[in-house]
Amino acid sequence: MPAELIDGSAVAARVRERVKHGVADRLGRGLPAPGLATILVGEDPASAIYVSRKQEACREVGITPFDHRLAADARADEIAALIGRLNADQRVHGILLQLPLPHGLDAAPLIDLIDPAKDVDGLTTISQGRLLSGRPGLRPCTPRGVLELLDAYEVALEGREAVVVGRSQLVGKPLAQLLLERNATVTVCHSRTRSLAAVCSRAEVLVAAAGVPRLIGREHVRRGAVVIDVGIHRLAEGLCGDVDQSAVRDKAALLTPVPGGVGPMTVAMLLENTLLAAEQQSGAGGGASSDRPGM
Amino acid sequence: MPAELIDGSAVAARVRERVKHGVADRLGRGLPAPGLATILVGEDPASAIYVSRKQEACREVGITPFDHRLAADARADEIAALIGRLNADQRVHGILLQLPLPHGLDAAPLIDLIDPAKDVDGLTTISQGRLLSGRPGLRPCTPRGVLELLDAYEVALEGREAVVVGRSQLVGKPLAQLLLERNATVTVCHSRTRSLAAVCSRAEVLVAAAGVPRLIGREHVRRGAVVIDVGIHRLAEGLCGDVDQSAVRDKAALLTPVPGGVGPMTVAMLLENTLLAAEQQSGAGGGASSDRPGM
Repeated sequence: MPAELIDGSAVAARVRERVKHGVADRLGRGLPAPGLATILVGEDPASAIYVSRKQEACREVGITPFDHRLAADARADEIAALIGRLNADQRVHGILLQLPLPHGLDAAPLIDLIDPAKDVDGLTTISQGRLLSGRPGLRPCTPRGVLELLDAYEVALEGREAVVVGRSQLVGKPLAQLLLERNATVTVCHSRTRSLAAVCSRAEVLVAAAGVPRLIGREHVRRGAVVIDVGIHRLAEGLCGDVDQSAVRDKAALLTPVPGGVGPMTVAMLLENTLLAAEQQSGAGGGASSDRPGM
Repeated sequence: MPAELIDGSAVAARVRERVKHGVADRLGRGLPAPGLATILVGEDPASAIYVSRKQEACREVGITPFDHRLAADARADEIAALIGRLNADQRVHGILLQLPLPHGLDAAPLIDLIDPAKDVDGLTTISQGRLLSGRPGLRPCTPRGVLELLDAYEVALEGREAVVVGRSQLVGKPLAQLLLERNATVTVCHSRTRSLAAVCSRAEVLVAAAGVPRLIGREHVRRGAVVIDVGIHRLAEGLCGDVDQSAVRDKAALLTPVPGGVGPMTVAMLLENTLLAAEQQSGAGGGASSDRPGM
């Protein structure tokens, strides 16, 4: 029997609907609309498209987008000054620095200037520390999207064997933490793992986030496993993921397609993070900084 | 053939000797001695003994201990004020808040007041975030001690299967990150793990840090594995660890005894962290705060 395909577009649409209701509820309580500021540095066309899509998605659910663009030769201190103004701007509840930055700009210290209360990408050092220590905080969007898909398909995680292939800052590492929080037994694999197929084939839940086209084949998948494919690659013959979909389809029980699987979830969770950030900032009753530990 | 026992006391002595040389070298460069401030709140006898031992260990290697004691009924704002003074004190390069705090005091927000540059226990949110994101920073002492033992016995980690039993903030979670940094394939198990024995017996390097006496028996250990026992429990019949030592001794290749295994490493790594912090603060040439991201 071929795997049931996980419909990421449908789940993402439900999340957006949930956010839309949350925003309406917020407005009904007399609170301002959540605001998301995007910062785009330079002219990279792909980044410009991503930013436009995020802003359009904001508008659809009632979040106010604030568009900020800087020239490709912007200096770090200009970006820093902009982030400082956005941290102080009460209309802005989330700040997103679109990556990658133009060559010569170091992203990490700039990201760390974002008030953790407004860190809707969950990438500041403080957000990462909150994640590792299990304290409340904003979590990275794609890993949250994976959890949302698993929940939507009622995949039990507690006590089950989850294997994450890839250890990136954006996906692999935070996802491993989220799966651990949900009481899965979690293994992280990577390029140095020996016998990748043997390790992966233990997984009841297998997440491929290695960034290698069709890395995961039939021999990597345990019969009846749930397989989540985070990769997306544009090859001559079309889009593909980190999973060789046709090879694993009759072995997995549940499988995310590419496209239409994890992809749509990232923006949906960004919207939800922005709403969560706005609620947190309103709830604290005094601006974002009261949510910063050690301040 | 019974397992070779890992001599933690000998490895710890070598680390202390290394720190002693590092301190002497620092003094030779005209820099002040590293300073470690300990904060003990209340009268818990065990905590008082731990603090005394740490101070004594400091003196032996040339680190200046600064002893701070507060009454058991000290308020959080008093502790906060003390931490603030120590953050500003240039003679103090490391600050250690002895845990646990008396009932009614929440440790996490107080720990987060410690300047990350002086966070020799590696427990602030920023230190945890640096650990998860692989950025330079001070790492928790016991996990560092485990790595030091593995290195001292030339245990290869790259590409090998490491299993960590336990996911505490102090040991399990940071240790998993350190093993991952060393390119091991890392699995984290815990109380909800099904078939603990089956998962553990895959490990080429097995670390028991669950806090459960003799949890790890013969069936949990792969033949020829390296077994690191982080537990220490005082039972009626004497000290024991998380590993049933007599049951696994002829199956493991290398094994830490209890006591005399991981135990002595924690204080040794605290001394090294204090020296590292001092060097970092001197290198930055202007006090600790320049090392804080986002400030």
